[in-house]
Amino acid sequence: MEELKARIRRDGKIKSGNVLKVDSFLNHQMDVNLFTEIGQEFKRRFAGEEINKILTIEASGIGIACITAQSFGVPVVFAKKTQTKNIAGEVYTTQVESFTHGRVYDIIVSKEFLGKGDKVLLIDDFLANGKALEGLACLVRDSGAELVGAGIVIEKGFQPGGDMLRARGIRVESLAVIDRMDEVTGTIVFRGEA
Amino acid sequence: MEELKARIRRDGKIKSGNVLKVDSFLNHQMDVNLFTEIGQEFKRRFAGEEINKILTIEASGIGIACITAQSFGVPVVFAKKTQTKNIAGEVYTTQVESFTHGRVYDIIVSKEFLGKGDKVLLIDDFLANGKALEGLACLVRDSGAELVGAGIVIEKGFQPGGDMLRARGIRVESLAVIDRMDEVTGTIVFRGEA
Repeated sequence: MEELKARIRRDGKIKSGNVLKVDSFLNHQMDVNLFTEIGQEFKRRFAGEEINKILTIEASGIGIACITAQSFGVPVVFAKKTQTKNIAGEVYTTQVESFTHGRVYDIIVSKEFLGKGDKVLLIDDFLANGKALEGLACLVRDSGAELVGAGIVIEKGFQPGGDMLRARGIRVESLAVIDRMDEVTGTIVFRGEA
Repeated sequence: MEELKARIRRDGKIKSGNVLKVDSFLNHQMDVNLFTEIGQEFKRRFAGEEINKILTIEASGIGIACITAQSFGVPVVFAKKTQTKNIAGEVYTTQVESFTHGRVYDIIVSKEFLGKGDKVLLIDDFLANGKALEGLACLVRDSGAELVGAGIVIEKGFQPGGDMLRARGIRVESLAVIDRMDEVTGTIVFRGEA
């Protein structure tokens, strides 16, 4: 998605440790006009697929998921991060390891809102090591729902998450895949470019 | 907003301790068609006001804030909840007491995304004791931005938050104000009704 790549080039900030800060338009301040374009692009990519629910994870996935859901005409469910023990039986739950925050947390979805017959599209802002997306896919599987695919705004192609998920047969559509970036020169090379 | 009140009556579940569960359409599963109506209603209520930014708080406010922001044509900033110490100088921060979770947490907004010249509308899903909204208003004040008002989906009118904020001169527009509700009979009385 060219508009998105141009925006990443213009406003993204490369920090040490392969960190890409896009908090001016994606995950702290949020440009909802761009989100509308992103939602329509996900709809184009998954055109023809039967999807009746979008699943994301709090917090920064929620805005993109909601605006994408307008294009699909379906509800959103967001998985909650929790460190409290939950009553067995009421929720689907799995563990996710966060590299950014250096800890493991539980994510949960109420059994009321995900289950057999659901055809689910995962939406998230970032894909790097793929642990969050893997957790969401696990909740979908445990619920008996069908996983249609995953729509990602920015994939760090030099980290293993995308390859790992595709190797498992999950259709992952990333609107911008970064193959490499350089903190010193500020250069970003997207997949498909020279 | 009649459509919202009807939805609360139909799908809301009253639990002990004055808890109203609306997680089937508002804050776990999210009905984005309803959110679009909600966003347009906020736009009608704040028509004529100059607003260039919407501020909310993670997680459940983000979806409504983003879809509301489409009606206003402005970006959203969401305050992050954190338990980690932040580098002084880079963020505005204040403490918020959560009655639901029985703890105090810090909320932060980067100084890059809020400041003098901004005319800010606060958006959140619930108003009860008003601590989250009070924290957001504090961040706006500290940043030198102007607080235009607050748009709330559901206000628990029998809890003190709404009165407290209005007494401070903050314009609070709540789309459904619950004056009382009864766990045993399942009755909900909205403000303005008999």
